Amino acid sequence: MRLPPAVTIVARSGTGKTTLLEKLIRELTARGWTIGALKHDAHKFEIDREGKDSWRMTKAGATVTTINSSEQSATMRRHDLEPKIKEILERDFREVDLVLTEGFKASDLPKIEIHRHTLGQPLLCRGEHHDPHLVAIASDTKINLDVPVLDLNATDAIATFIERTFLK
Amino acid sequence: MRLPPAVTIVARSGTGKTTLLEKLIRELTARGWTIGALKHDAHKFEIDREGKDSWRMTKAGATVTTINSSEQSATMRRHDLEPKIKEILERDFREVDLVLTEGFKASDLPKIEIHRHTLGQPLLCRGEHHDPHLVAIASDTKINLDVPVLDLNATDAIATFIERTFLK
Repeated sequence: MRLPPAVTIVARSGTGKTTLLEKLIRELTARGWTIGALKHDAHKFEIDREGKDSWRMTKAGATVTTINSSEQSATMRRHDLEPKIKEILERDFREVDLVLTEGFKASDLPKIEIHRHTLGQPLLCRGEHHDPHLVAIASDTKINLDVPVLDLNATDAIATFIERTFLK
Repeated sequence: MRLPPAVTIVARSGTGKTTLLEKLIRELTARGWTIGALKHDAHKFEIDREGKDSWRMTKAGATVTTINSSEQSATMRRHDLEPKIKEILERDFREVDLVLTEGFKASDLPKIEIHRHTLGQPLLCRGEHHDPHLVAIASDTKINLDVPVLDLNATDAIATFIERTFLK
């Protein structure tokens, strides 16, 4: 089974992971790639809307509920055991060119870490803990590292790095 | 690739398809089966909530967005061409015992038609149009047909019919 390439954006909180992810999705989509996005949510989330038919199906006990139209579909799943990232990639993202994710710090996905000099915090993937899956840093300042350091504010350069590393 | 068995509930509108579907899901889940539910929506639906991270990813251009927690996951997909039912069954429902769907009158899924005498309407799957995929009628009155006629108000009997026909 084909697994699409995946890259995860990691950072300490408050560094703008979601905003960078959004910009990268927009840029890579504009370049013609089909992009998947995966996000972990630590909280209980209610994505469906109370009273909708799909919500009623799930409440009645359906393990999987899909609602489908000519333009889109939505699938809600309940599980007792959180699936592994690779299981989710294989299950949901087989037809995309690349999956961008946020977080999953403990995973072995290739990682791009966001670093903001102004926040004065040490890196997550270098220093005390050396993460072998770090492939680049996106930073607002110049630092010397064993991996490429990209300009955090140059989305196009980060997108080009991702293209060259994972898509060509 | 394993396709789960699927049965669709068809009826003229206003006969209570969703309510019967809900009752059957509840009954079959209580009997220990894992049930999937699939529904077609003819309208534009907005299942996600404006401003949520997953909503932002989709708006940015992601073709597939999954949000995952320890208890559930939700996947939003955009498509230009509506996938065929069998593609959806294969994609989303591989791990369930049975998929219950609503509508899909023109499909070749096995069908149970709801009939209400009080509405005074002819059957969809018998009469002018003879649907070879009709497996039973759930009716509020006794009628003579070439397929089993089940009591619309006896959810347990309908569930048992489904179990015997598709699950054992």
